Amino acid sequence: MTVNPSRAHRPGGRTRQVTERLWAAALDILAEKGVDGLQYEELASRARVGRATVYRRWPNRDDLFRDVLARFAETSVPIDDTGDVVRDLTAFLHSFAEASATPTGRAVLQILLRRVDEADGLHRMGLELLDRRTDDLQRRLDRATAAGQLPPTEAPFVNMMLSGPVQWFVLRRARPFTLSDAREIVELVVAGLWRDHAE
Amino acid sequence: MTVNPSRAHRPGGRTRQVTERLWAAALDILAEKGVDGLQYEELASRARVGRATVYRRWPNRDDLFRDVLARFAETSVPIDDTGDVVRDLTAFLHSFAEASATPTGRAVLQILLRRVDEADGLHRMGLELLDRRTDDLQRRLDRATAAGQLPPTEAPFVNMMLSGPVQWFVLRRARPFTLSDAREIVELVVAGLWRDHAE
Repeated sequence: MTVNPSRAHRPGGRTRQVTERLWAAALDILAEKGVDGLQYEELASRARVGRATVYRRWPNRDDLFRDVLARFAETSVPIDDTGDVVRDLTAFLHSFAEASATPTGRAVLQILLRRVDEADGLHRMGLELLDRRTDDLQRRLDRATAAGQLPPTEAPFVNMMLSGPVQWFVLRRARPFTLSDAREIVELVVAGLWRDHAE
Repeated sequence: MTVNPSRAHRPGGRTRQVTERLWAAALDILAEKGVDGLQYEELASRARVGRATVYRRWPNRDDLFRDVLARFAETSVPIDDTGDVVRDLTAFLHSFAEASATPTGRAVLQILLRRVDEADGLHRMGLELLDRRTDDLQRRLDRATAAGQLPPTEAPFVNMMLSGPVQWFVLRRARPFTLSDAREIVELVVAGLWRDHAE
C-alpha cells in the first residue's frame, strides 16, 4: 500500500509501463482461460514483474475484475441524438458490438457468466454497468417517442432486443459485425415495436 | 481403456452411480469455475472416486466437454408444427431458455466463450450443435412462408433475433423467463420481418 509519488506521477515512466504490461497480460489470460483460470503467478511471469507487484496493484482478484468492468464502462460511448432514431440506435449497436468483441468485452461476459448468488458484488457491478447504458437509452427513446418516431417503449426491453442479437453474433465470431448488420437489427426492432399501433 | 462388461451393463449398478456422481460434479464445477477452472483432482474428490476413474471416463478435458455438448444437444426438442408459427416459435424459444439456464446450458456458453482460433474443434462442435437447430428452424419457417404467415426468411437471422435476446435475459438471471416473455419476443420479430412487405 506504499506509493512512490515520483514514480506514480511520471507519465510514460517505468510504473506506467508496468501497469500497461500487467493490464495486457491480465486481458490475455482472461480471454484464454476465463475468470477462474487467472492465476497471479502466470500474470506476473507474462507481465515480467514480480508477484509482489501484482499484489500491490490488485490485492485480490475481485480488485482486478472491478478494474476490467470499469475499463469496459469507459469505452462505452453515449447514445447520439441526430434526430434520426434508427441512425442513432444503429451507431449505438455497432459500437456495442465492437466493445463486446475486444478482450475486455469478452472478459466482462465471463464475469457475468460466473454462477453467483444474488449477493455477489461483482456480478451486480457488471449488471449495474449495463444498466447505466439503459438510463441513457431510455432518454433517447423518450425523445423519439415525443418526435413520433417510436411508440412509448421501455429501454430494458429494447436493449434486450437490440443487444441480445449482437452478443449472439459476436459469440459466433464468423465474421465482423458491420454497420449494415446493426441497421438490419434496428429496422426490424423499430418496425416490430409499432406492431400494436398500426392504423 | 479396459472395460469390465459385467459392470458396464448393470443399469442402476455401481458404475452407473459413479457416472451420475461424476456428471453432477463436473457440471457443478463448470458452473462455478468455468471451463478452465475444471481440475481432475477436484472432480475426483467431489464425486468421491479415484482420479484413475475420472481419467478412464474422460481421458482428457476435451472428452468431457464433448460429453457436455452432446448432452445439451439431447435436451433440445424439435420445433413443433401446429400450423400457428407464432405459437410454435414461442414454445421453441421457451424451451431454449429453459435449457440455457441449466448448468449444462451455462457450461455450453462457457465453452463457446473460450478464445479459440478457427481450428478449435470444440468451439466448432458447439456451433455445429447450434446450427443443427437452424436447419430444423429453416424447415419450419419455410412452411410458414408457404402458408402466408411469414415473408421468406433466413433461419440464422431469425434465430439470432429470437435466441439472442433470450441469452441476454438468461444471463441477467433477474427472474425466470416465462412463456409470455417468449411470446412478446416472437410477436415483435414476426411483425418486424414483415416490415418491407406492408401493403
